[in-house]
Amino acid sequence: MTRLPPIKFTRGVPPPEAFPTERLAECANAVLHNDYDVVLQYGSAGGFARLRHWIAAQYKVGSERVIIGQGSLQLLDTIARVMIKPGDVVYVEEPTYDRAITVLRRAGVRLVGIPLAADGLDVDFMAQRLAGGERPVLFYIIPDFQNPSGTVLSLEKRQRMAGLASQYGFYYVEDSPYRKLRYHGTELPSLFDLAPERVMQLSSYSKLIAPGLRVGYVVASPELAPDLLKFSEDTYINASYFNQAIVHEFIQRGWLDDNLSILKRLYAPRLEAMLAGLEHYLASQATWAPVEGGFFVGMTLNRPVSAPNLLALASAAGLLLTDGRGFYPSGSGDRFVRLPFCALTPAEITAGIARLAEVVNSL
Amino acid sequence: MTRLPPIKFTRGVPPPEAFPTERLAECANAVLHNDYDVVLQYGSAGGFARLRHWIAAQYKVGSERVIIGQGSLQLLDTIARVMIKPGDVVYVEEPTYDRAITVLRRAGVRLVGIPLAADGLDVDFMAQRLAGGERPVLFYIIPDFQNPSGTVLSLEKRQRMAGLASQYGFYYVEDSPYRKLRYHGTELPSLFDLAPERVMQLSSYSKLIAPGLRVGYVVASPELAPDLLKFSEDTYINASYFNQAIVHEFIQRGWLDDNLSILKRLYAPRLEAMLAGLEHYLASQATWAPVEGGFFVGMTLNRPVSAPNLLALASAAGLLLTDGRGFYPSGSGDRFVRLPFCALTPAEITAGIARLAEVVNSL
Repeated sequence: MTRLPPIKFTRGVPPPEAFPTERLAECANAVLHNDYDVVLQYGSAGGFARLRHWIAAQYKVGSERVIIGQGSLQLLDTIARVMIKPGDVVYVEEPTYDRAITVLRRAGVRLVGIPLAADGLDVDFMAQRLAGGERPVLFYIIPDFQNPSGTVLSLEKRQRMAGLASQYGFYYVEDSPYRKLRYHGTELPSLFDLAPERVMQLSSYSKLIAPGLRVGYVVASPELAPDLLKFSEDTYINASYFNQAIVHEFIQRGWLDDNLSILKRLYAPRLEAMLAGLEHYLASQATWAPVEGGFFVGMTLNRPVSAPNLLALASAAGLLLTDGRGFYPSGSGDRFVRLPFCALTPAEITAGIARLAEVVNSL
Repeated sequence: MTRLPPIKFTRGVPPPEAFPTERLAECANAVLHNDYDVVLQYGSAGGFARLRHWIAAQYKVGSERVIIGQGSLQLLDTIARVMIKPGDVVYVEEPTYDRAITVLRRAGVRLVGIPLAADGLDVDFMAQRLAGGERPVLFYIIPDFQNPSGTVLSLEKRQRMAGLASQYGFYYVEDSPYRKLRYHGTELPSLFDLAPERVMQLSSYSKLIAPGLRVGYVVASPELAPDLLKFSEDTYINASYFNQAIVHEFIQRGWLDDNLSILKRLYAPRLEAMLAGLEHYLASQATWAPVEGGFFVGMTLNRPVSAPNLLALASAAGLLLTDGRGFYPSGSGDRFVRLPFCALTPAEITAGIARLAEVVNSL
């Protein structure tokens, strides 16, 4: 088995064939010729004005609430540094994005993981903790095609959670990088749509155009936006307007909508191969959510296993996995396997799941 | 006087006519076509490998010591977050770069300003403090064409300061964005050249190519580089390889050397106009260092003034100045005026200094 080329179920990155390279080259050329004096200069930390206005219009807010940075992780770091004092309580989903755990822990928070079900968060568990007197400052949440589980928070839960934030006076940081990548089913209103005064939405063009541009943004609450802007300026003056102007040009030419169609056509069969492979090979051994978009299917094995043991056996079988425990603030997660499907072909995915089933059966 | 168009002696930015726009467009096109799979993807936080290697070779160090980020200010912030505990002592020049003061203060340091003379730091003052038992963790210093004063640290002082760092066991963070922009005279060895084991050098391509690319770097000490790399990855994954690859392509084509020649030809007459204007209009009212490069001449008025009063009178006379107190960690600096000369024509500079003299004489 060790002779097989390894299949990587590790990082959730887009494949190179998803990059609209020629179109980005055209946009780069256009913005340098039309706006060199702005895009090659320093600027305000809020970002390239025309992209800022475009994003603000999408969210129906004033552009002073939009801050564009080098990816949304850094903006989460800025939110943490501005809003959080050591010892503050922050809620996250359990499991959640491993890098968000790192950023929040670094700010000295007491991180509380609220368990996920197949239709998103266990809102009863959350409501009980709030009723018991716990007072989070923030809830970092990924309602759409969650990283790492792939789940979508149900509409009923979104509505209930919007109410809880108003009742108890905390903010959601709604991270939405995958929201536009729905391959089946119907889009739900975002938390921001339901409670704009209680939600700051993070998103980025990393998954919709290309990660290497490093363009992400936050739509901040009116009272926090000025502090986030000042803190960002004090940290890096501004993120690159050149990259932001390329994104703006790409959007203006209608190419973002094109690109979303292209990506959906590329990724839908990959998700299909993943779900079919799991159903075929692992239905009796594991559970997973009915994923309809995004980059990941999160699988939980029925039987107890040790993550290091699972990873070692998988590696020997030519299969690279991420340690599931990294997604669990509680440190559990041995039985959890994140399966990214966008950067592999359907054939690789099917072969990978077959190998995974062999590994699971050998445990 | 209020009818005159204002002359801005405020920000130290390059003028748009200094941007090599066509050449950057060619480089952007080349890297997208040759390396789209790398430059549009995520990557290691250290930076685009070929630029990292090129920088490392310039410094004669291993490339694992080079970390490329979105400008050097953010890298200073990372250094502060990794190395500094609240209450630690950090030395800076007085006056120094206002944004560095903000970043260091935010990390909770006790900032100690060491006074500057016309040939750089008052090393006797520094040596006395060290001998008295004060133990800085870092000394943030700009030895070449200092921001805001324009001074160059003399060779003798560099040598003495290199010895003090070894003797007392602290690090210099040597910020060198202007070092290559020398219009007259002879380059001196950097602090890094003299004490590579005690110096981390920051620099960037903001002043040498264009700020909008947001490409800066640190050459870190071997023992700190891994921690800085991990912290950077945990904060923003990586800065844009697209922008870094453009810088690398620009260098490989021999255009950086070209550009330095072009910038020197553009800026030298502006510095000349500044020094001639000061000599003509303000010789009896103020002092300044014999500046030979960079972006700034720092002028100190002989008589006591109040900065708000000076700024208000200047503004009424059509002259925008930066409050000198922002450059002084002690909060003094009322008599200090930073005069950036790169983004104004010689005629504007001469007119601006004439207006400044009128304001000073009216005080």
